[in-house]
Amino acid sequence: MRTAIYPGSFDPPTLGHRDLIMRADKLVDRLIVGVLHNPAKQACFTVAERVAMLEELTRDLPHVEVASFNGLLVDFARQQDAHFIIRGVRAFSDFEYEFQMALMNRKLNADLETVFLMPKEEYSVVSSRMVREVGSMGGDISGLVPETFVDRVAARLRSSRSLAT
Amino acid sequence: MRTAIYPGSFDPPTLGHRDLIMRADKLVDRLIVGVLHNPAKQACFTVAERVAMLEELTRDLPHVEVASFNGLLVDFARQQDAHFIIRGVRAFSDFEYEFQMALMNRKLNADLETVFLMPKEEYSVVSSRMVREVGSMGGDISGLVPETFVDRVAARLRSSRSLAT
Amino acid sequence: MRTAIYPGSFDPPTLGHRDLIMRADKLVDRLIVGVLHNPAKQACFTVAERVAMLEELTRDLPHVEVASFNGLLVDFARQQDAHFIIRGVRAFSDFEYEFQMALMNRKLNADLETVFLMPKEEYSVVSSRMVREVGSMGGDISGLVPETFVDRVAARLRSSRSLAT
Amino acid sequence: MRTAIYPGSFDPPTLGHRDLIMRADKLVDRLIVGVLHNPAKQACFTVAERVAMLEELTRDLPHVEVASFNGLLVDFARQQDAHFIIRGVRAFSDFEYEFQMALMNRKLNADLETVFLMPKEEYSVVSSRMVREVGSMGGDISGLVPETFVDRVAARLRSSRSLAT
Amino acid sequence: MRTAIYPGSFDPPTLGHRDLIMRADKLVDRLIVGVLHNPAKQACFTVAERVAMLEELTRDLPHVEVASFNGLLVDFARQQDAHFIIRGVRAFSDFEYEFQMALMNRKLNADLETVFLMPKEEYSVVSSRMVREVGSMGGDISGLVPETFVDRVAARLRSSRSLAT
Amino acid sequence: MRTAIYPGSFDPPTLGHRDLIMRADKLVDRLIVGVLHNPAKQACFTVAERVAMLEELTRDLPHVEVASFNGLLVDFARQQDAHFIIRGVRAFSDFEYEFQMALMNRKLNADLETVFLMPKEEYSVVSSRMVREVGSMGGDISGLVPETFVDRVAARLRSSRSLAT
Repeated sequence: MRTAIYPGSFDPPTLGHRDLIMRADKLVDRLIVGVLHNPAKQACFTVAERVAMLEELTRDLPHVEVASFNGLLVDFARQQDAHFIIRGVRAFSDFEYEFQMALMNRKLNADLETVFLMPKEEYSVVSSRMVREVGSMGGDISGLVPETFVDRVAARLRSSRSLAT
Repeated sequence: MRTAIYPGSFDPPTLGHRDLIMRADKLVDRLIVGVLHNPAKQACFTVAERVAMLEELTRDLPHVEVASFNGLLVDFARQQDAHFIIRGVRAFSDFEYEFQMALMNRKLNADLETVFLMPKEEYSVVSSRMVREVGSMGGDISGLVPETFVDRVAARLRSSRSLAT
Repeated sequence: MRTAIYPGSFDPPTLGHRDLIMRADKLVDRLIVGVLHNPAKQACFTVAERVAMLEELTRDLPHVEVASFNGLLVDFARQQDAHFIIRGVRAFSDFEYEFQMALMNRKLNADLETVFLMPKEEYSVVSSRMVREVGSMGGDISGLVPETFVDRVAARLRSSRSLAT
Repeated sequence: MRTAIYPGSFDPPTLGHRDLIMRADKLVDRLIVGVLHNPAKQACFTVAERVAMLEELTRDLPHVEVASFNGLLVDFARQQDAHFIIRGVRAFSDFEYEFQMALMNRKLNADLETVFLMPKEEYSVVSSRMVREVGSMGGDISGLVPETFVDRVAARLRSSRSLAT
Repeated sequence: MRTAIYPGSFDPPTLGHRDLIMRADKLVDRLIVGVLHNPAKQACFTVAERVAMLEELTRDLPHVEVASFNGLLVDFARQQDAHFIIRGVRAFSDFEYEFQMALMNRKLNADLETVFLMPKEEYSVVSSRMVREVGSMGGDISGLVPETFVDRVAARLRSSRSLAT
Repeated sequence: MRTAIYPGSFDPPTLGHRDLIMRADKLVDRLIVGVLHNPAKQACFTVAERVAMLEELTRDLPHVEVASFNGLLVDFARQQDAHFIIRGVRAFSDFEYEFQMALMNRKLNADLETVFLMPKEEYSVVSSRMVREVGSMGGDISGLVPETFVDRVAARLRSSRSLAT
């Protein structure tokens, strides 16, 4: 059985994430969406909220699981008996960063293979950061996040703005 | 009438900004230099100071206006009835970021066209950040900012350093 | 009156070219689509054929003209009294080449400004070379070239393949 | 059953190709190394020779097949009932080209997913072109091509040089 | 006598730094490893600790000195009568940043030449930031920092993590 | 004694080459400008002509020699007892190519160090290819090649054009 981890912050999950999950799901037998819990970085959504949104988003995909992790990705992969890491690459990706991470993970565990997939072209500019920026200024985020999330994500981002001001 | 917005932080305005304004001025009928008011980012100069400096810098250009804005650029463009965004691109630009912003703005308003212009080659390394770094360490910033600003920008940057120490 | 030249080989014109022409048309008062006649490079379509296709493609755009040129672009611009060069940039563009050309043209004529525009995202991979490669192998080129050209371009590319074999 | 195609010219196969085949072999159930027969490009080794070398190289990998193809990759994939394309990406890859090809292939067949894998770091500069350049000038190509090929590849490249002079 | 400065944060020094120092040492007569004291950036190791580690690392290289500096690099170079700056470039380098810094330094002092060298390929992903990230999550940093530093660097990074939590 | 080779085609030598030679001359004790004789590539100027132009260009630099070579650069370096290769890098360089060549040369001879220097900013777009393109179309090449070469280079490029037509 081929198990892969698709790691990320998913703060919040976007249509691009959903697209990539569906592509990765076809490639492997078991896909774990791994929500990174990074205490050093302030997030808009709690890890529990992000896990819940991703579970909602992948309910129709029986081979996809959602889990949070902290610490090194290679350690999480070992616990999950996963041999593949899935990363999305786009024309706008920071390849240098992606490559450094992939090579570093290979240095830490030579049996862990990073697999790069391309999201749908129309999602190439959609990132969590972009969603947060647009949403916090009251912009329309439909078309960026899954339809069922639009209202709650928009509400959260608007409120985070009023706190910041 | 073709109206364009040249948005930025201009903290402080540089010779590169001045060069780009003059190029954009030839391309459109009305050019609005839009000073972004970003409460989340600490600035060296207040928005009012930056607007004043830009007004001083563009006094001889009758079709150029200076205004500050906050929120989404697409909303500011709509208020100003502007259909073009001007952005400077240099060999050292972060194209990924520029492209993401341009495509995102197009997603938010399909009628808003981003136009990329190149500043004069000798200004390709001149950025507000570079001015701040050099100036805060007591380096010579003439040749980086307009001559009439050199003294007051240098003084401000030196004082911001003594505060930091 | 602002006049711009949109230079290229257009061998053949693609939907991406058409998209860029429409964007440039909004920015300037007069747009000249300049078909480069490069005797050193073997083309699929004659210059006359390419001019005719572009004229067909821009019939509904009264401020757009089509012309062929050889020699230096700066000389052609001078003849046409054009002060702007339009170039399309995409995530997949060869920026180094674009920038070198733009800076060289500025060296040759400081009054000639290169203006970069972005085609529609879905055309970001569409190039004449891609059309020629796909078409010459019998692939479907609808969606790549304007609908009215699909049959004749496909026929030409298929025949060029049989000659090559 | 997941079937993937690893397409290329393999003129000649390198240690980097061998490394990537082994990585792809772990990811899918059936891997077809597809040797592109491109009549427009002059090769050092005939398609038959390249197929033979790759078969020799993959003899110990029961799920790997070698085949040649011409025409569109999407057509070859359809014939082979393959849903995945494997491509190697390195720090030195021409990403723009890789992305254009991947997006174009997706345009031609939306069910065909391109999967990018990274070869071992020490092979990041090893390419068929580099082998041909070094070998044709009498340089040592061991460490670039599989050991069993060194002598015959070196001999062929040396002779192609004497012909060129 | 040719004197060069190899500036950096070295927080902590890595095997990549050590490799580059040895390469630069062959190129010039006197090499000064300059540890930047940046009060605005929180470091893991004090400047004194970093200087001590670098001195330990270069004990066997008689023409290498270690010194800390703050303020502009061009001022430090002038004090040291150095005419060359050494910078490491890797496939994963941020060239834009490197080039901007080099051009800015040349603007500030036209006699100061930046010289770019490549570290050993296997160190291309090794950076101080990577060491800090891996180490702070309890990962194995041997192979990233010099062997004699592994234990104390690991201990420091682990303790900085517990403070952060 | 530190000996370096600055290899290239120099077809023809440009002001950028001259600038880089002067920078490299300060860095090493003996600099050999190596004119690559590549029989597979058609040149505008013979190797003898290029050597003569470079000798004229470096007459005032006593530590600079000019020589032609064919075959592998590492072999030429060994013959000349050179341990450094000088390469110019610009914002517009093809870094991937430069890095591949440097790493390949290191693979072929671990003691051969590639040193990257930056030409003066105003020469960043000046390349032999650009000179050939501009000159062959009758454009003004002063400011691109050394003043004493302008007439003969222009004459040669014009005549090569008439042959091509």
